[in-house]
Amino acid sequence: MKIAILGTGMVGETLGSKLVALGHEVRMGSRTPDNAKAAAWVKKAGGKASQGTFRDAAWFAELLFNCTLGNASLEVLKSAGEDALRGKVLVDVSNPLDFTKGMPPVLSTPPDDSLGEQLQRAFPSLKVVKALNTMNCEVMVDPSRVPGDHDVFVSGNDVDAKARVKQLLTEGFGWKHVIDLGDITTARGTEAFLPLWLRLWGTLRTGDFNIHVVKR
Amino acid sequence: MKIAILGTGMVGETLGSKLVALGHEVRMGSRTPDNAKAAAWVKKAGGKASQGTFRDAAWFAELLFNCTLGNASLEVLKSAGEDALRGKVLVDVSNPLDFTKGMPPVLSTPPDDSLGEQLQRAFPSLKVVKALNTMNCEVMVDPSRVPGDHDVFVSGNDVDAKARVKQLLTEGFGWKHVIDLGDITTARGTEAFLPLWLRLWGTLRTGDFNIHVVKR
Repeated sequence: MKIAILGTGMVGETLGSKLVALGHEVRMGSRTPDNAKAAAWVKKAGGKASQGTFRDAAWFAELLFNCTLGNASLEVLKSAGEDALRGKVLVDVSNPLDFTKGMPPVLSTPPDDSLGEQLQRAFPSLKVVKALNTMNCEVMVDPSRVPGDHDVFVSGNDVDAKARVKQLLTEGFGWKHVIDLGDITTARGTEAFLPLWLRLWGTLRTGDFNIHVVKR
Repeated sequence: MKIAILGTGMVGETLGSKLVALGHEVRMGSRTPDNAKAAAWVKKAGGKASQGTFRDAAWFAELLFNCTLGNASLEVLKSAGEDALRGKVLVDVSNPLDFTKGMPPVLSTPPDDSLGEQLQRAFPSLKVVKALNTMNCEVMVDPSRVPGDHDVFVSGNDVDAKARVKQLLTEGFGWKHVIDLGDITTARGTEAFLPLWLRLWGTLRTGDFNIHVVKR
């Protein structure tokens, strides 16, 4: 599959490398066509890795991962362009965190909204699937780092897009438990988990953790 | 132990009845001394159950449970009075939810604050311990309703107060896993879990669930 990684940070690198290792053609998008971090990643990832602008990467791909900082994501998608995004699937793994008020950061969306919904509203023909935003990036692509049963959540309006993402999560990344929370408004739930995730990270002193939902 | 339950809703009733069953003297506080729901609860709970105003209940108790609606809690504690609360332990199980914008409700505190912190700031000599606000009230007092391992969180500034609450949670209610997240600011984490709890409730169609934190 042709996949775009939007963003050159650690999350983008980790997801991109895993997808290359799975045999996908992966283009990492950034503001400029010759971004140094993307170039270094292309060299390291090998395989079918390439780089380009956000717009290049969006045109190239059928499925995109939003790995940009949450507060920059809308601007990044605008620079990719509505025409390049039309009808495609966007896996939004980012979180709307505001780092300007000190650590730990706080949510920057109002309580009756989410970044997932904002992206979906701005690009109605894009199929936004919120997923993987509730764990650290190493666990995203290798859930076996955390022993036993634990869960990943998906939220989105398009059932087929969610099914494709679930398949990638299970068959590609090895997730055993995918919980479909419903439409994209349920991204409010998983994005709001971040304040708890950040405290758990502080308490457990490792990013190798996750939650498992247990029911009767 | 002499315990006050502030609030006559389902959470207060359930916690109060469990505490009476454990042999504690429990006074349910409400706005008026002869509240009908509190009277019905006293009759039902038997044992050492009694009722009174918020102020009566606060004077009576050494440990209090805040089971009022989050948005009413500050007002309730003010009506109990600073003198009646001084030096006591308040287990804050409530959540700051705004139901005016439809269902599911949204958080009503800003992202850089929490109800737990608001109560602690308003009553500096009160030892606020945020706990039990991340599950339904039947699971609060009987964690065995949910099979296997799952967790309850505590947040608070006073180490001794947290130790007393942890003891009640483990020896009284039967909790196996108590995660101490740190000071009262970590209540921002557990209160922000509510939007995800509400979506899980909608998806799982039962309140008999909880989360377990799994780490490497």
